[in-house]
Amino acid sequence: MLDIKEKLKSNAEIVECALESCYSYATPDFQQLIEAQKYGLLGGGKRIRAFLVLEICRLFSGDIAPAIPYACAIEMIHASSLIHDDMPCMDNDDVRRGKPSTHKKFGESLALLSGDAMMVKAFGVCVKNNMLSVEQNAKAIEILANSTGECGMLAGQTMDIDAAKKMLDFETLVKLHQYKTGKLISASAKLGCIAAGVGENDEKYLAAIKYAENVGLAFQIIDDILDYNEGKRELNSFLSFMSVEEATKYALDLTESGISAISPYDDGTFTELAKYLIIREF
Amino acid sequence: MLDIKEKLKSNAEIVECALESCYSYATPDFQQLIEAQKYGLLGGGKRIRAFLVLEICRLFSGDIAPAIPYACAIEMIHASSLIHDDMPCMDNDDVRRGKPSTHKKFGESLALLSGDAMMVKAFGVCVKNNMLSVEQNAKAIEILANSTGECGMLAGQTMDIDAAKKMLDFETLVKLHQYKTGKLISASAKLGCIAAGVGENDEKYLAAIKYAENVGLAFQIIDDILDYNEGKRELNSFLSFMSVEEATKYALDLTESGISAISPYDDGTFTELAKYLIIREF
Repeated sequence: MLDIKEKLKSNAEIVECALESCYSYATPDFQQLIEAQKYGLLGGGKRIRAFLVLEICRLFSGDIAPAIPYACAIEMIHASSLIHDDMPCMDNDDVRRGKPSTHKKFGESLALLSGDAMMVKAFGVCVKNNMLSVEQNAKAIEILANSTGECGMLAGQTMDIDAAKKMLDFETLVKLHQYKTGKLISASAKLGCIAAGVGENDEKYLAAIKYAENVGLAFQIIDDILDYNEGKRELNSFLSFMSVEEATKYALDLTESGISAISPYDDGTFTELAKYLIIREF
Repeated sequence: MLDIKEKLKSNAEIVECALESCYSYATPDFQQLIEAQKYGLLGGGKRIRAFLVLEICRLFSGDIAPAIPYACAIEMIHASSLIHDDMPCMDNDDVRRGKPSTHKKFGESLALLSGDAMMVKAFGVCVKNNMLSVEQNAKAIEILANSTGECGMLAGQTMDIDAAKKMLDFETLVKLHQYKTGKLISASAKLGCIAAGVGENDEKYLAAIKYAENVGLAFQIIDDILDYNEGKRELNSFLSFMSVEEATKYALDLTESGISAISPYDDGTFTELAKYLIIREF
């Protein structure tokens, strides 16, 4: 497990540095809007999404460099959703990763605007990826828009609003996770493929998506198990439908199935990552 | 003036229909998120930005069709900013165009998410414009991201937060308008050029930008004059720095300068539009 931990750390450092450089203005006109974005984006997070983009690209092409802008873009979309999600009209969370959340630090209006700006910036970063062809960047933008918008992450967040009020059936609970977090996780795998020159009809592309989807859902189930074991009884949890043992088996089965999909191509990284996400030692 | 009014109306109808069709899902999974977007986007607005995209494209290429997706994209960015701007943490406006604003109708969380989704969708619509080349769409996305994000409209909205608290100097007031509304207005002209195959180094491109910038600023000055004449005394208004006569002359000079920039190419549309925006008969 040492290897995957080191690899996660080293990739996270590369991504942190690349994200920083996206905000390197000589004389920014609107310092506050930049600062609020950097506050919500930098200095934390496991960068699992970026890791998937970079490592899928490395697996299929031997290089991570062309995928770095796409990895930044997906982290920007994710961070912008966290900024908005923490706001009082959403989850109303005052703390994020041990720090005051963006709206507590900068005020609600700046939190709203910085989330907006970061979401827009993700597309600007993709389109300016000059290590790849304009066709690849266009495909990346299409993937990013589809997996973020009304048929992606934001649809999942909309379902989450309803979920706060009523208990979902099992099918809907799975769907909520598939949209809210799953869509961006699969998008990460897709972006890694596009950066590696692997197209949508390639078997590798399908394998990468299957891996991401299964491991992504397993991650959410483990989240629910951890919450349950800490004594939290959430209205919408996998533990409302099964025992801890059953949920653990469900997560392990999904992990197994994800590993099996990528195994014809895997150099060990993805098997280790999947296991690591189950053990959750971070 | 009959012609330009008819032209605005007919273009607005084309855009309305195109925007509607962007949301035509056979079985939308997340009806609420779609409905909130359509509520904030459709059935109103002068569509001046879309008009500029379409008419600049027609002026330089003889056709509006290839520019329609870009016109939709810019209206989506604009409408999403209005949804977010009306929210309690921003301007806290309960009414927009005579109807309850989106957050009053759908709640704050859905207003936030629908603004986010629409901003993302704008990029999705651009990248899928199959009447134009992938290079043109990439350029359009770059323009859209630059003019919306932290160096564009959202920077202007950030300045506006400060402007609510203190009186700006004249230079900063001009800059606020140049960012808050000006950037998207110039982007409209740029997108029309790109759709027409007119590149950034072309004199036509520069003429179109100059027209848009000048007429856009004139529009804001007229806004301030109208507010002033209705008895409103805003903290940050052009009327804090000049008399109504001086402000009117300022707006007319800008309009003149805009008309003069586009005049080598104008078929009359842009002269009429500029005059119409000054008279403001809508």
